[in-house]
Amino acid sequence: MEVTRKNYKDCLNTVYSAIEEADFLAIDGEFSGISDGPNVSALTNGLDTPEERYTKLKKHSMDFLLFQFGLCTFKYDQAKYITKPFNFYIFPKPFNRTSPDIKFICQSSSIDFLASQGFDFNKVFCHGIPYLNQEEEAQLREQTEERRNQHANGVGTPSFISPSSSKGSSHVPEEHKDFINKVVEKVEALLGNSEKTLDLEPCTGECCLKPCLCFDRLAWFPKGLHVETVETEKKERYIQISKVDEEERKRREQQKLEREQASYQMFLGKLVVGHNMLLDVMHTIHQFYCPLPEDLQDFKEVTMCVFPRLLDTKLMASTQPFKELITNTSLAELEKQLKESPFKSPQVETAEGFPSYDTAQEQLHEAGYDAYITGLCFIAMANYLGSFLTPPKAYISARSKLIEPFFNKLFLMRIIDIPYLNITGPDLQPKRDHVLYVTFPKEWKTSDLYQLFSAFGNIQVSWIDDTSAFVSLSQTDQVQIAMNTSRYAESYKIQTYAEYIQGKQQEKEKQTTKTWGEDSWVKPHYTCSTTSGFGYSRCSKRSISPMQGEQGADDAQITDGWSHYSYPDTTGTKKMKTDGVSIRVFICTVFLGGVVFSVVVCSRVPLGKYLAEDESRWHGE
Amino acid sequence: MEVTRKNYKDCLNTVYSAIEEADFLAIDGEFSGISDGPNVSALTNGLDTPEERYTKLKKHSMDFLLFQFGLCTFKYDQAKYITKPFNFYIFPKPFNRTSPDIKFICQSSSIDFLASQGFDFNKVFCHGIPYLNQEEEAQLREQTEERRNQHANGVGTPSFISPSSSKGSSHVPEEHKDFINKVVEKVEALLGNSEKTLDLEPCTGECCLKPCLCFDRLAWFPKGLHVETVETEKKERYIQISKVDEEERKRREQQKLEREQASYQMFLGKLVVGHNMLLDVMHTIHQFYCPLPEDLQDFKEVTMCVFPRLLDTKLMASTQPFKELITNTSLAELEKQLKESPFKSPQVETAEGFPSYDTAQEQLHEAGYDAYITGLCFIAMANYLGSFLTPPKAYISARSKLIEPFFNKLFLMRIIDIPYLNITGPDLQPKRDHVLYVTFPKEWKTSDLYQLFSAFGNIQVSWIDDTSAFVSLSQTDQVQIAMNTSRYAESYKIQTYAEYIQGKQQEKEKQTTKTWGEDSWVKPHYTCSTTSGFGYSRCSKRSISPMQGEQGADDAQITDGWSHYSYPDTTGTKKMKTDGVSIRVFICTVFLGGVVFSVVVCSRVPLGKYLAEDESRWHGE
Repeated sequence: MEVTRKNYKDCLNTVYSAIEEADFLAIDGEFSGISDGPNVSALTNGLDTPEERYTKLKKHSMDFLLFQFGLCTFKYDQAKYITKPFNFYIFPKPFNRTSPDIKFICQSSSIDFLASQGFDFNKVFCHGIPYLNQEEEAQLREQTEERRNQHANGVGTPSFISPSSSKGSSHVPEEHKDFINKVVEKVEALLGNSEKTLDLEPCTGECCLKPCLCFDRLAWFPKGLHVETVETEKKERYIQISKVDEEERKRREQQKLEREQASYQMFLGKLVVGHNMLLDVMHTIHQFYCPLPEDLQDFKEVTMCVFPRLLDTKLMASTQPFKELITNTSLAELEKQLKESPFKSPQVETAEGFPSYDTAQEQLHEAGYDAYITGLCFIAMANYLGSFLTPPKAYISARSKLIEPFFNKLFLMRIIDIPYLNITGPDLQPKRDHVLYVTFPKEWKTSDLYQLFSAFGNIQVSWIDDTSAFVSLSQTDQVQIAMNTSRYAESYKIQTYAEYIQGKQQEKEKQTTKTWGEDSWVKPHYTCSTTSGFGYSRCSKRSISPMQGEQGADDAQITDGWSHYSYPDTTGTKKMKTDGVSIRVFICTVFLGGVVFSVVVCSRVPLGKYLAEDESRWHGE
Repeated sequence: MEVTRKNYKDCLNTVYSAIEEADFLAIDGEFSGISDGPNVSALTNGLDTPEERYTKLKKHSMDFLLFQFGLCTFKYDQAKYITKPFNFYIFPKPFNRTSPDIKFICQSSSIDFLASQGFDFNKVFCHGIPYLNQEEEAQLREQTEERRNQHANGVGTPSFISPSSSKGSSHVPEEHKDFINKVVEKVEALLGNSEKTLDLEPCTGECCLKPCLCFDRLAWFPKGLHVETVETEKKERYIQISKVDEEERKRREQQKLEREQASYQMFLGKLVVGHNMLLDVMHTIHQFYCPLPEDLQDFKEVTMCVFPRLLDTKLMASTQPFKELITNTSLAELEKQLKESPFKSPQVETAEGFPSYDTAQEQLHEAGYDAYITGLCFIAMANYLGSFLTPPKAYISARSKLIEPFFNKLFLMRIIDIPYLNITGPDLQPKRDHVLYVTFPKEWKTSDLYQLFSAFGNIQVSWIDDTSAFVSLSQTDQVQIAMNTSRYAESYKIQTYAEYIQGKQQEKEKQTTKTWGEDSWVKPHYTCSTTSGFGYSRCSKRSISPMQGEQGADDAQITDGWSHYSYPDTTGTKKMKTDGVSIRVFICTVFLGGVVFSVVVCSRVPLGKYLAEDESRWHGE
């Protein structure tokens, strides 16, 4: 189902109920680009630490636009999954002249690639759903409130700006001026007469802009007017303006908040699946929730607030027991391989009223389709785990303990020895005691490094920038020899990896001290909340009793299945204690036709297929 | 006529001949945004110097994409103009993996505005004509040459990379591999046999990508192969590969250059008209020619190389004798007013085979349409000047002396006392001795400034940033009083405008000295050339004998007409001596299907209608 600014309101309940009934959700996003700095191969280093990788992605990938968001819900029903795929088109259409005028970057190669896949840019730019992050929404609310107060105190502007008289109204398109003049007249009349409410004409077709313009004006009206969109029995929407006192207004807003909160209580505990999803998660949080924090640990905390249970199918496919069976983990290839033995294609059926996807006709790089096949991949791999049970099980639910080891581990591309970012705990710390950090003149090429280390047999060079690289020796005991021989070198310098990390750490501490000292900057702490008011809500502490007994009886003998394979996190991670299960809903606040809507997209976006598919961009060259 | 990557080659001759026969050209561009920094009203200050304005526009507007370029040619024939409008869709599709991967910014409000006007983004992104600026083209040529040499010297790669064997070929779409394999086989055969040439199959329909991929490979072939696109009698194009020695190859390339040069000799002396065109000129030069120079004077020199004769209809409409008659100089309004008395709608006719525009059905913000009505405005205003002659003339040609005073003066938006940027001479230097430069704490608002200067009657405040503003007093003799009273002030500081300019000048000199000292940086000098090889050509000195006797006999009594009105440049500018007439062609180098094409677009782009039309963005607030 395509969801745009035009049909957004009508679709909302369908989206809600699809999420509500689902066993798990799959998501995917398409972006306007990947890296605004160096190309991806220069940007990513095979020996990046998770912190370094996060910092690089944050710096060079967040100014692109996530403009298509795919969501596919999966509901298990009578031995098959019923799917409901959605494609949300997203565009930050400015709400009015004081709302943020977002600038985003486009990368030609990415745009060209999507264009070649038949991507519909017109749909994005003409009908994309607008959005605000939490802070922007709060600001806009404050501004509106301020204007109201200004009037209430008799300061500044008159009760409204007459569309005909004011220069300020020059942004009202000519064809809407009549409409707005009429509304203004009616509202003036309402203020002067004994009526309690005023119903505007129902909105049809292209008129969705009108209420928007109208509200822009209404913001200048004195307090005491409550504006609400009401739906008739015929599903026509109209705007109702009522005279209410301040108390009544607050009561009504409180009611609205409560309705919203009730609606996202239902999404507790749902698994969100994506493919190669780190960048998608970062984009979704950055675009719809809050600017990404500086620090990786803070990012992990925010992520757990927004997406408490993630599963990355690329990481899953790269891990035992799948690693041995799957040669290519790009989404399209993975999907194909999972149709072959020993895997089984899952039984799926598209829900009535939804366009059905045919995996034989690849529609890759449409976010909804990519989300759909990501879900298929997850099901096929999860079910395969069932074959290790005694007796074997053909169906493994999204709540099975069997898949828990894959939770909240996001695939890290092109890092040699750290397969994933561990969202709920410390990251793997591989021994890098065979790695040297070498600095040299900028004229040096890879061949110079090979020559320098020619005595040490096979080496591996990972460039950092023009004047530095990591050199991995094949044997750790060679490190000391290399250090000794380099002692008197003038043109180049060698440090052990440990020395390099120590140096970076010291540098960081120096900077942090400075920041704290200068700006009295307080490190934010991100925790989750559903109790604070929506729209103004910030993450705050919350505990929910740990999820228990959710997995079916068929998973009871889980330990037998377990012993057949090992997990990456057995190599040294310590599981962070979490508050049990919390909210897995992602809250995307969307402005639509001038009315603030709260959309529980329940989301988290898998690494734009770009990244996942077109791996030559990352691995190639 | 719509010109895209698909029909570009076919249209080229039509474009050439339209320009060749034209009396003047009108141009217009559409951009992906206007300002990536502060919004336009914060960016532009009513008391900017031309240098400051240029620096701001360069800093905040050049990372947007000029993605639609409108050209309309006007040819006078039997008492009417014949027009040929073109819409070029432009997109920097990367040519191959080593060519530049351009990033450009989109501004939501601009994109939303174009979307609301029905702009076709899919056409831009899917079928936009790719381009390179001079430097990028030279780099790409060098890379290709280098690869050839590497092979000739037996270094590195084999004579070609077999599409099937190499990882490097992973960017070749599956469906083209067969085609390329066949070409590679044929070329291998050619190298081994006694044939002199190899003709590939004609290109039809969607195959335009193939030669591109093919060339990418062919670059790895040894020297001694010449590649050329040849057209059959049936207008089918095919690629011919010939075995030639180095001398023959050079001779052929020289031939090609000469053909190209001959083709743009014909564009000498043509007038290029635009509406509010400063930003368009900057964009066109920046995108297709060379990065904009730091210094305004250097920018003027480059502009004169690329566009030796410009006319800005917004400036013309804002100048006597039009100023008194025209109340709104935005393009759409201007066009309407010029249909009414005392003006006359020009007689125009669209050339056969071109889509005709109807000015009653406004298609504003399509670049070709905007160029078209810009041309109409120019004709109506030029002809009006004829009414001042004795006897009056109904038709004034684009070569008439009557319009010369408007040449090369580009409208400056929102500067109170400098109406235009003078491309061919020093800029106006209005007296600003009633202006004070005030710095103050960032908490100050306009009301604080009004209060501070309350003793001086009417003042005008032009904000610079959070902590500074210009304050214009109504009388110059108040300046000294204000300076005296402020002597002991602690919270704020006042300087005269002259002191402010002196301070800036000193700062600039300090920086320039530093730059010269540190980098041995040599200031470039831009002059024009048609003699150096196209593609590698840089501007170099060139003189052409001054244009003489070009205006018709009907303009002979020109001095009579003159005395009726005054021109802005009578207020103190000194006309710079120019080398007479030089080249007014803008050379846009476009990569198409892997073959370097030279497009003489003959262009210069009027200030994106955005700017011109939606003046509330500039003047409003």
